[in-house]
Amino acid sequence: MANEFTERVAAIAADRSHGSAEIARLCLALLADAAERVHARDAVELRTSLQRLAATLIASRPSMTAVLRLVSLWLDRYSHSPPPELHDQREAASRAARALIDESRAATRGAARLAARQLETCRTLLTYSYSSTVREAIGLLPADVHVMFSEGRPLNEGYRLAEALSKSRRKATLVTDAQLGSLLQRADAVLVGADSILTDGSLINKTGTLPIAATAAHFGVPFYTCCESYKLRTADMPEPTLERMSPGELGAPEWPGIVIENVYFDITPPVLISACMTETGRRIFPGYRDDDTAHP
Amino acid sequence: MANEFTERVAAIAADRSHGSAEIARLCLALLADAAERVHARDAVELRTSLQRLAATLIASRPSMTAVLRLVSLWLDRYSHSPPPELHDQREAASRAARALIDESRAATRGAARLAARQLETCRTLLTYSYSSTVREAIGLLPADVHVMFSEGRPLNEGYRLAEALSKSRRKATLVTDAQLGSLLQRADAVLVGADSILTDGSLINKTGTLPIAATAAHFGVPFYTCCESYKLRTADMPEPTLERMSPGELGAPEWPGIVIENVYFDITPPVLISACMTETGRRIFPGYRDDDTAHP
Repeated sequence: MANEFTERVAAIAADRSHGSAEIARLCLALLADAAERVHARDAVELRTSLQRLAATLIASRPSMTAVLRLVSLWLDRYSHSPPPELHDQREAASRAARALIDESRAATRGAARLAARQLETCRTLLTYSYSSTVREAIGLLPADVHVMFSEGRPLNEGYRLAEALSKSRRKATLVTDAQLGSLLQRADAVLVGADSILTDGSLINKTGTLPIAATAAHFGVPFYTCCESYKLRTADMPEPTLERMSPGELGAPEWPGIVIENVYFDITPPVLISACMTETGRRIFPGYRDDDTAHP
Repeated sequence: MANEFTERVAAIAADRSHGSAEIARLCLALLADAAERVHARDAVELRTSLQRLAATLIASRPSMTAVLRLVSLWLDRYSHSPPPELHDQREAASRAARALIDESRAATRGAARLAARQLETCRTLLTYSYSSTVREAIGLLPADVHVMFSEGRPLNEGYRLAEALSKSRRKATLVTDAQLGSLLQRADAVLVGADSILTDGSLINKTGTLPIAATAAHFGVPFYTCCESYKLRTADMPEPTLERMSPGELGAPEWPGIVIENVYFDITPPVLISACMTETGRRIFPGYRDDDTAHP
């Protein structure tokens, strides 16, 4: 049984195809299952095991604020007044995790709805990487809205979006990541998800978001991010680490003296962002782009 | 014999690994060989054949001004007062082509020297795609200057630069194209080659150059281009076409309704460029970035 969870933690650490809201929910589902089934002789041992598992999950995705916040929230809720009996504690811990999964799903839906409303006049939307919130927002847009997006090297999570858009019969164009800058000239707006929103409104998202935002600002195309509010970092949290993955993911040959870097996230500063949509509303941080289109 | 040249023209049209100065020289080498060996019963027939070949070469790379200008210059020079005898005409045409190859090589060297001088204080240089002029400029920089560059999807011409830098024992870092925006924060300058410089100073170069330039401007990192002066378009030339290649080059699956675009070039506007270095000097076009570092 321990093995089952070790393997699932490893899969979450290595997961490149899901957005961070989905990954946070995978963590909660794992914790719910562990609460029900992990070996424990009594309530104290269960709690110790689950706390250790929670810490491991948080450490496995240091760029993803939703993982930190939702897993911490779960720990808080179920540790607040834990039932003394093993069976009751299993049930309480599992119920708390599954309730948070539902809350997170509702938050994603709310953020997507607000993003779709913000894009009311948009006919051509550019997006980048894979975000379940963005995907849900696109589903709410009129059928003739055209979506432009890219591969998402090195592991091509753009393919996942391609499949989803194709299934929902959305008109869409796929390009290399490098072509997005040029395509911005044909876009009415950019909408991306978020791995984290820092306290000043900066956006941590898949590497390549920053140059899109800089080019969008150059062309005067509004740049929006949308996510559940669990992705907003609070002042007491440390700066998140930008995850580095294996250089081997690039599939490049090796050359003596040539170092290959594979950093998954970049930071887009507030001045390049028009607005951030969460389920609690549209936020315009003080340093955000002075952008009429952000206030329709 | 006709087959040999047909095949070489096709190879030039499909060539993604050489920079445009090199491709222009490949065109001239082909014309020199054709002048010597292509079947012709007399001087008039030779001239007609060579003119047709020249026109085919120019049309095969519509984004590459060096091809247009060098091949046109060759036609001008050898057609000016063509010797009436077949043998003499073969020799004159071949000699003119080989002389232009030498002139082009000298121009590349001159542009590279000027670019290296511009980068005197640069310790970390960012470049993109493959340019023989940039490669030559890097060779002139002090041994401790660090170079950062990327794959160059879809066909990875960055690998060619990796190989060259590795052989010359240059410290260098290779990343995905999407990571270059973030790496700009560690760069002292950007230097790229050019496929064409338009009359207003705009730069046509490998797709992905535009977002790098926009991000460099955002961070205040100087953005230089260097090329032989043959790449500057003159007012009498038509707007160049941005070449589109086969969507199959991306190696992506096919999804119903998802269009794959593979445009090889983008246009960087003057306001994002600090200076353009050619063998005839440093040019600051009127619309260029107002950038102190461009005037050391």
